[in-house]
Amino acid sequence: MFKQAIDKRVAVFVAPGLEEIEGLTVVDLLFRAGIPCDTVAITPERQVTSSHEVTIVCDRSIADEGFSFDDYDMLVLPGGIPGTPNLRSCEPLCRALLDHAEKGLPLAAICAAPSILAELGLLAGRRATSNPGFQHVLDEHGAQLLSEEPVVVDGPFVTSQGAGTAMLFALEIVRHYLGDDAVERVRAGVVLR
Amino acid sequence: MFKQAIDKRVAVFVAPGLEEIEGLTVVDLLFRAGIPCDTVAITPERQVTSSHEVTIVCDRSIADEGFSFDDYDMLVLPGGIPGTPNLRSCEPLCRALLDHAEKGLPLAAICAAPSILAELGLLAGRRATSNPGFQHVLDEHGAQLLSEEPVVVDGPFVTSQGAGTAMLFALEIVRHYLGDDAVERVRAGVVLR
Repeated sequence: MFKQAIDKRVAVFVAPGLEEIEGLTVVDLLFRAGIPCDTVAITPERQVTSSHEVTIVCDRSIADEGFSFDDYDMLVLPGGIPGTPNLRSCEPLCRALLDHAEKGLPLAAICAAPSILAELGLLAGRRATSNPGFQHVLDEHGAQLLSEEPVVVDGPFVTSQGAGTAMLFALEIVRHYLGDDAVERVRAGVVLR
Repeated sequence: MFKQAIDKRVAVFVAPGLEEIEGLTVVDLLFRAGIPCDTVAITPERQVTSSHEVTIVCDRSIADEGFSFDDYDMLVLPGGIPGTPNLRSCEPLCRALLDHAEKGLPLAAICAAPSILAELGLLAGRRATSNPGFQHVLDEHGAQLLSEEPVVVDGPFVTSQGAGTAMLFALEIVRHYLGDDAVERVRAGVVLR
């Protein structure tokens, strides 16, 4: 049963070869918190297969008639290979990331995906983290790298390290919208001590 | 790239209303470890929707021509409501759980799903855990309840508490087949410290 807690919506972008746990943990915890969230395929086909051969059927595609990035407050980028380079190659998505950042809207990325925000110039001077294998990209683009933190929040940016930190990443997104009490409720619901 | 490490296969059973993270975290980590694993729908339709409205396309259905529970070494039960009662109502699955247990083959269950093993009489005298809301079922059926442990292994049984413990649950399944070094490799891969 979904009890909607806020009017804003979150989009989790789904590319072929995504790390499915990084994307779906966000969907799961936001559902529990009552934060509207859509899985959005960056391909015209809404059925997308992950890097671990899990096929999911997304709620929408960016190619759908009437789709607009402006329907969403926060844009979330899961990692995975080749999911991350596939997101990076999606020009409409990259334009939307720049546009959202310009408006001060929140952006979240995990694992390899913070490198996309870095390459777009959005993390310069920002505290951030990513998968250890991609931290050099953040460093090269002027981020203040917090290499050991599982998740880092700096203003509208939420960044995190990998599938093993996806719960903490998702909880920071819950905190962004609903605060500490909601985080504690969701954390208890998933039995994360 | 999947590099197969063992000849045995694992089945993750997928029912409408499953907790998708509990099922897919196992799929993800077993893929990383090289342990063959199928998502198996208990419905004739292989496309199944989770308790958080995530639709996944399973690898197989128990209704497929030629499907046999004997194709699998370990049977894994994710939780979720109504996923768990849906698994409990699936007679072919429950018979297979009893048959597997009789043969000493491994069974794993998380969240509400250990209650299925308990109700089938399989956890009597066994150390086990589950979601706090279902621990009374384990207790009533003679399990040695370890109420605070995120994951418990007793012989062929692996039980765990919820989505927030799904990584630890999946790592114990990796350990069952491949030992401690493989667990450390997978843990590093997902950046779980």
